[in-house]
Amino acid sequence: MSVVGVDLGGTKILARVVDPATGRTVGRKKVPTPKDGTDAVMSAVAELVRDVTASVADGTAKGVSAEDAAEAVTAVGVGVPGLVEADGTVSRCPNIPGWDQPVAVKTILEADLGLPVVVSNDVNCGAVAEHRLGAGRGTDDLLAVFVGTGVGGGLIINNQLVVGERGMAGEIGHLTVVSDGRICGCGERGHLESYAGRAGIEREARRLHAAGRPNALVELAGESPIKSRHLEQALAAGDEVAHQLVDDAVMALAIGIGNVATLLDLSRVVVGGGVADKLGRPFLEQIMGSPDFGGFGPQVCTLELAQHLDDAGVLGAALLAADLIEN
Amino acid sequence: MSVVGVDLGGTKILARVVDPATGRTVGRKKVPTPKDGTDAVMSAVAELVRDVTASVADGTAKGVSAEDAAEAVTAVGVGVPGLVEADGTVSRCPNIPGWDQPVAVKTILEADLGLPVVVSNDVNCGAVAEHRLGAGRGTDDLLAVFVGTGVGGGLIINNQLVVGERGMAGEIGHLTVVSDGRICGCGERGHLESYAGRAGIEREARRLHAAGRPNALVELAGESPIKSRHLEQALAAGDEVAHQLVDDAVMALAIGIGNVATLLDLSRVVVGGGVADKLGRPFLEQIMGSPDFGGFGPQVCTLELAQHLDDAGVLGAALLAADLIEN
Repeated sequence: MSVVGVDLGGTKILARVVDPATGRTVGRKKVPTPKDGTDAVMSAVAELVRDVTASVADGTAKGVSAEDAAEAVTAVGVGVPGLVEADGTVSRCPNIPGWDQPVAVKTILEADLGLPVVVSNDVNCGAVAEHRLGAGRGTDDLLAVFVGTGVGGGLIINNQLVVGERGMAGEIGHLTVVSDGRICGCGERGHLESYAGRAGIEREARRLHAAGRPNALVELAGESPIKSRHLEQALAAGDEVAHQLVDDAVMALAIGIGNVATLLDLSRVVVGGGVADKLGRPFLEQIMGSPDFGGFGPQVCTLELAQHLDDAGVLGAALLAADLIEN
Repeated sequence: MSVVGVDLGGTKILARVVDPATGRTVGRKKVPTPKDGTDAVMSAVAELVRDVTASVADGTAKGVSAEDAAEAVTAVGVGVPGLVEADGTVSRCPNIPGWDQPVAVKTILEADLGLPVVVSNDVNCGAVAEHRLGAGRGTDDLLAVFVGTGVGGGLIINNQLVVGERGMAGEIGHLTVVSDGRICGCGERGHLESYAGRAGIEREARRLHAAGRPNALVELAGESPIKSRHLEQALAAGDEVAHQLVDDAVMALAIGIGNVATLLDLSRVVVGGGVADKLGRPFLEQIMGSPDFGGFGPQVCTLELAQHLDDAGVLGAALLAADLIEN
């Protein structure tokens, strides 16, 4: 048995044929995300699934064995950067151009492909990948936190992904960590993401710069967005504002992660995403050693770096597809 | 089928024979908790279960019908104010005299009674009672918060009680809500319980009193512990310190409950315990209306008063016992 995982992103669509028992990738393909509406996006996903499946079946995919080629694809998992309802409809998906109303992704793709399809939030897919094939292996309960432009999270309890009634579970980025604190991208105050997400760090760096505290982050990035590598470089150069902003991010993550670990009695939390990947293990050590490490965090839980980076979404989507067949 | 629920408390042990389909109590008995060690406590529990069962079977329990008397008791649930491990051992139980080492409650009672026994934390039992037969009915996912001397919580996800790897899940009282805030009874700083629990409120009221801010809470209670009714009376009298301390409690509960509702995508949270029961609906309205209502709290969730007060533990224990038979 093989399954296909798809990661539907704002700029590209990735697909892989995966052996779900091992997580091994048998074939892979990608295409740019169409910019002309969700009908075109849905057609592109279906076409990509057919292409990558055919490339394995006919042996043209790199390194594919005769055994691999003989395995039938039995299900498809799709990770999307949006809000997924229980019936596989994606009601909001702001990063994909033209997604201005709900799209019944599961229904459309099942009709087109003739295979069972599961649709899940891409961050949740990442959590599933880390839980089964990454740094969360061996746990029954896991929080995976992804620190990038924003801060997302996925929760596994009793080896099951927790999605919540409205598909919104896991939103650790929008936990309040500072009463009446910084304004978040969502408009509320004091949320974790406003301190630990790259966009929140950038807003604060530019505000300080404009307010008379010039800093290496703004100088390195210029007019372009501040990247994780700028953060890394500014820290290495001893830039005071960069250090302060990373300390703020550590405080926010320490409170939020410690609290979730306390609430759910977690012994392990996996931390990934571009910022965590660049700052690496010392960043996690700083969170675990922080006086702000919340609740019983210091007594109950350790943080581990995520093992999958760009492929966590596509891999997790494939694993969820395999569940469709096994359950 | 009938089941027996037991609530093992620091001063008394309650037992009820319950019809699990309706939650109706068929018979009830209680005894004081023995003060001379855990062997005596275990014997008292077993004896009480036999007594209450016999009082139903022989028709001496008040209002018991012939049908009730004919129903066999098939399982026993025990709620304890301590840390329950996966095998039904209670490793810590500080409120019961002499509980200075782990006791294999499930094993001991099963051997004594010859019936299947489930052991659970009493707060978790309360959450189960509210979920199935109280203010949480109709939800798949629920947080129940009990605001009394301390602040405890129980979590239901996908209609299952979440206990966590070490049996510590649901500890909302020890979420950090104020960085570097008040010292909690557990020794850490800024935990929800230190602001919202009666013991935390009392510590702060006495500290303020001693520091030159005399207040009605200390005046009403004198040398005795400050009770929920003193809080109610002091508020009604317009005492400034009491209002400030309740505002602090509201802030802490608003951050903590809003954050948990956001993380788990909860649409309902049940709030019970002595403080919530005394202050009632206006207290919940104040939490929901607070600018500190955390995360997406205001958008996603409503708070409801618990419907069970002193009987939540015994009822929830009985419901968990029924699960032993049905699963």
